[in-house]
Amino acid sequence: MHGTPINREHCRRLDADDPLARFRGRFAASKENRIFLDANSMGKMAATVPERMSRFWTEAWVDLGRQGWNQFEWLERPAQIGAAFAPLIGANPEDVLACDSTTINLYKLLTYAWRTRNSGSVILTEQGNFPTDLYVAQGLPGVIVGDPTVKTCETRAALVEAIGPDTAVVYLSHADYRTSERWDMADINARAHAVGAVTVWDLSHSAGAVPVDLMGTDADYAVGCGYKYLCSGPGGPAYLWVHPRHGDAAWPTIAGWMGHEDVFAFAKQYGPLPGAARHGAGTPLVIANEVAWCAAEIWQEVDPRQLWDKHRALGDLLIALLEQECGALGVEVNSPRDYDERGGHIGFSHPGAGPVVEALLAANVVGSFRRPNAIRFGLGALYISHEDIWEAVARLRHILETESWRDPKFQKVSV
Amino acid sequence: MHGTPINREHCRRLDADDPLARFRGRFAASKENRIFLDANSMGKMAATVPERMSRFWTEAWVDLGRQGWNQFEWLERPAQIGAAFAPLIGANPEDVLACDSTTINLYKLLTYAWRTRNSGSVILTEQGNFPTDLYVAQGLPGVIVGDPTVKTCETRAALVEAIGPDTAVVYLSHADYRTSERWDMADINARAHAVGAVTVWDLSHSAGAVPVDLMGTDADYAVGCGYKYLCSGPGGPAYLWVHPRHGDAAWPTIAGWMGHEDVFAFAKQYGPLPGAARHGAGTPLVIANEVAWCAAEIWQEVDPRQLWDKHRALGDLLIALLEQECGALGVEVNSPRDYDERGGHIGFSHPGAGPVVEALLAANVVGSFRRPNAIRFGLGALYISHEDIWEAVARLRHILETESWRDPKFQKVSV
Repeated sequence: MHGTPINREHCRRLDADDPLARFRGRFAASKENRIFLDANSMGKMAATVPERMSRFWTEAWVDLGRQGWNQFEWLERPAQIGAAFAPLIGANPEDVLACDSTTINLYKLLTYAWRTRNSGSVILTEQGNFPTDLYVAQGLPGVIVGDPTVKTCETRAALVEAIGPDTAVVYLSHADYRTSERWDMADINARAHAVGAVTVWDLSHSAGAVPVDLMGTDADYAVGCGYKYLCSGPGGPAYLWVHPRHGDAAWPTIAGWMGHEDVFAFAKQYGPLPGAARHGAGTPLVIANEVAWCAAEIWQEVDPRQLWDKHRALGDLLIALLEQECGALGVEVNSPRDYDERGGHIGFSHPGAGPVVEALLAANVVGSFRRPNAIRFGLGALYISHEDIWEAVARLRHILETESWRDPKFQKVSV
Repeated sequence: MHGTPINREHCRRLDADDPLARFRGRFAASKENRIFLDANSMGKMAATVPERMSRFWTEAWVDLGRQGWNQFEWLERPAQIGAAFAPLIGANPEDVLACDSTTINLYKLLTYAWRTRNSGSVILTEQGNFPTDLYVAQGLPGVIVGDPTVKTCETRAALVEAIGPDTAVVYLSHADYRTSERWDMADINARAHAVGAVTVWDLSHSAGAVPVDLMGTDADYAVGCGYKYLCSGPGGPAYLWVHPRHGDAAWPTIAGWMGHEDVFAFAKQYGPLPGAARHGAGTPLVIANEVAWCAAEIWQEVDPRQLWDKHRALGDLLIALLEQECGALGVEVNSPRDYDERGGHIGFSHPGAGPVVEALLAANVVGSFRRPNAIRFGLGALYISHEDIWEAVARLRHILETESWRDPKFQKVSV
């Protein structure tokens, strides 16, 4: 594939051999067949959502009201969705719970990891961690008992260097939200355990795209976003995972009725459920869960190995085409070329990145912009074809060649 | 009205004079015109939900994806919904934020109140507080700095007695979830302030039904459920309120990107938004918020005084009819007769309460059961008519007279 230039026919042949091609039709088609290279921001909608939710409004809410608790599995959904995601992250199904937002779940598990630590006094993280992850940690000193120190390293090398006897928790995003750089999870888990520390991983930019193996790499805790690669819907439920060895180590930080061992007993005294379920806290996000369930039903049918293979092929193709078609037009790929070192999106730079993303949107290619000059294409391997990649790069090339991105209408850059 | 027996005609006359009657049609009609006396568990659905959400799926998610952040006010909804609820709770619009679950919000504000306390070492509550409220408090000792002691009083008299110099926070449900007993909020706020303590109120069983005046009674903090009287939908966003005098006292306990002063700057250092907004934490519950917004649009049009007057009339009528029609059949009203002492529902007891609620459901009257022998009728004053109350009590009387509730099919009692 690297000897002669890649062409559209080549991409079509790859699509013809794609064992996941059948999943494309399981997601809703958008107007003008927009190409969504935006799975790092918002995954596509399962095609079943409108019909299922139509029924939900009438049958579950209007006609049944609170009876939905009994007749629609509203209480079971958090564990069911978690179980559907589990193979994508190398987890046992019973250790994953869909609930709340990523931020709330980061708070729950980072504080839990801290409270049940073996030793050390430092929560160790890197400057490149996603801002909300950093903020959650910054909020803990003076609030959570045990006087945690948050140490934020400027580089990955510095972080690896800093793991030591004073480390209590290593707290990282598995893949960087800007560059897509992926940590070697097994290596970091081993280094942390060697000094008695535990790890808390944010999987938002890796799970559902590239291999994650929480049990196999011996991780301790993880959380992730539901609405990116996992397609749970805007503001939909995030998820959390607790290694079974830590499941019963302490009460959850936020002790709520959904984490109670007998929720409808209305007991006056708290007593936690076993394992991850104790972190359930408040009433499940019933409506949002029902939407997420539409995607989870698809994930239940997906072989993770096929998903990862296809994501790898899409990413390799995108990098090759960006260089072949746009390399002479100012595009530079920033994400790692080595598949094992990158997450769900491919990042590349261009001096006009913001307006270019707006011009792409006008050409029905959805990417995203991050200051100062980065463009991200997030790859949803269940619904993106190889030919989509060809077509998106062709449109990008046209925008760069014609310099149409300099049009004043593209200078107002959206988030 | 108390001289001669109340009849259906009397109820119809009250409906003819009801200034809120026009709101009934704004909520979706259920099959067989079920009478939902269940607002304490699940409020009815705004009639606009199916159509709005149909458009949302296609226009906002499928066609726009993450662009919805810019074009659909996804970020603004939490404050917009909060502002719509504000008149119902006597709050300034900018001090109310719709977000997360009631449990999560209880945790946020109870810990914030504790962390910014004036004096004292005790979080004071009562055994009758809702279980999740109790659990949140029980989870704090050994977790939050400052070594809080949680003292749970067995009776209301004991709680009033216990407010003293060691009290840091008085932490109560405004109305009891079983009996509907309502605290005198002004009195408790004054007693708390007299000893240097602050108050945290859970409004789940009062707001949207009976008068709540947070500013007028000089409360400090409040949270509430969205999906009961406020009709935000199953598992929909709860809300929180912070008195402006406390708005900037400290960082929120859960410091997240939505509470950051410049959310899309992706700054590495946390800095909070002013006031209640800093407690926003994670990504808004976009889909759930859109559903809640359908109800909020209705609330924006409601005169709270008319709402409270109607709720009072419905409650008085229900109590009178329960006694007139069913008093000789074993029904005893448990909720306070005095309107100023009760919350959103009327509770009454019957020895066969569980099966009676099942038989009512089969007769298209939705109430709820709480062990051992309590029945609750929660009154959604925007969609319940006086004749509904007549009809519901008539069906209850028939069930009790014929003892149809003894049928084996009604003995399996649901939540």
